[in-house]
Amino acid sequence: MERHLDQDLDRIRQLLLRMGAIVEDMIGDSLQALFERDSNRAQGVIERDRQVDELEKQLDQACGAILATHQPAAVDLRFLVAVMRINVDLERMGDAAVSISRSVLDLNQEAQLKPYIDLPRLDELVRKMVRDALTSFVERSVELAVAVCRADSRVDDLYRQLFRELLSYMIEDPKTTTRGLHLLLVARSLERIADHATNIAEDVVFYVEGRDIRHLDDDEPL
Amino acid sequence: MERHLDQDLDRIRQLLLRMGAIVEDMIGDSLQALFERDSNRAQGVIERDRQVDELEKQLDQACGAILATHQPAAVDLRFLVAVMRINVDLERMGDAAVSISRSVLDLNQEAQLKPYIDLPRLDELVRKMVRDALTSFVERSVELAVAVCRADSRVDDLYRQLFRELLSYMIEDPKTTTRGLHLLLVARSLERIADHATNIAEDVVFYVEGRDIRHLDDDEPL
Repeated sequence: MERHLDQDLDRIRQLLLRMGAIVEDMIGDSLQALFERDSNRAQGVIERDRQVDELEKQLDQACGAILATHQPAAVDLRFLVAVMRINVDLERMGDAAVSISRSVLDLNQEAQLKPYIDLPRLDELVRKMVRDALTSFVERSVELAVAVCRADSRVDDLYRQLFRELLSYMIEDPKTTTRGLHLLLVARSLERIADHATNIAEDVVFYVEGRDIRHLDDDEPL
Repeated sequence: MERHLDQDLDRIRQLLLRMGAIVEDMIGDSLQALFERDSNRAQGVIERDRQVDELEKQLDQACGAILATHQPAAVDLRFLVAVMRINVDLERMGDAAVSISRSVLDLNQEAQLKPYIDLPRLDELVRKMVRDALTSFVERSVELAVAVCRADSRVDDLYRQLFRELLSYMIEDPKTTTRGLHLLLVARSLERIADHATNIAEDVVFYVEGRDIRHLDDDEPL
């Protein structure tokens, strides 16, 4: 029975990592499609979302089946609860990548508004958070998970800076409004992906240590 | 033991409904703060978010404790899994209401851009979805839950219409850009709240019937 449970948990871990890898690629591709004005790549992201949706269902079914048959306790139970939460965040990251890709398809119809400088920096920060959040899960590293949570405020700062800059473009020259707005929505989607990565990192701390570090005050230690 | 479990499940139901009532009020207040230019009300929404965050933690702890001690099966297990998912959606609806309220605080600093016509309609549609989603949970009504899922496409249509209209305002008169953008973000937050209500309705179907109706094709029956 024990070995059975371990095998089942391992299968779930593999499913989650496969889903994480697809979502990571979707995020990377959606931004690359913007920077290289590659609409085919954006289209590819939109199509891959089905796989993510399918994996989300498979994972929830597998977790439900284990809960019902093995009635796991302690760390195994926390693992399953964490996986069910991470599953939701990964699926919504996939949705955000689709949303970015839709904006990219529109943006690629017109000339580039301006050289992209802050957006690649935001992209890099956010993708590092996603990668680190998944690695913290694989390695059960609370230290890395806490680092992901801390990185989120830098993403928020960069997003606000981009927001102000794009807004001033739009006000100065109304011809840029549609493009400015799409770029703004791209930045906002990235900022949301960072929030989901933070959620995943919080779930990892819960899984490894049983501590709930969500919504702590700024002066409480993570 | 059995009676104990029933009591624990009932306590969780009460907690979830209390959280749902607070979030519903927050959404209603955030829009009323816009329509009546009432910044105090917007500030009140922002402050109430702490309660929601606190309830989210309490609920997850309570669900985890029941899973660990009672090892529930079948419908009780599905109930707990559904509650843990609904919990996440309610908390994010609360965040969306806070985000709306922040925009309202900015919007109330300037003259009203235009009479609000579509936004109150969107608000009404979305709040009905939220209310119905919570009612479908209380009454275990699959019929009502499916109606919530179906309403989502009307919200999407109305959101797209608002998006186009606000965009044309901004292009025509750049002085309206900042306000137009904030209104657009308000509409987008409402659209996301509708997505969360849809998620809750899907969880209700899963809880009552054990069916997973997420990501079905348009021609598959709900």
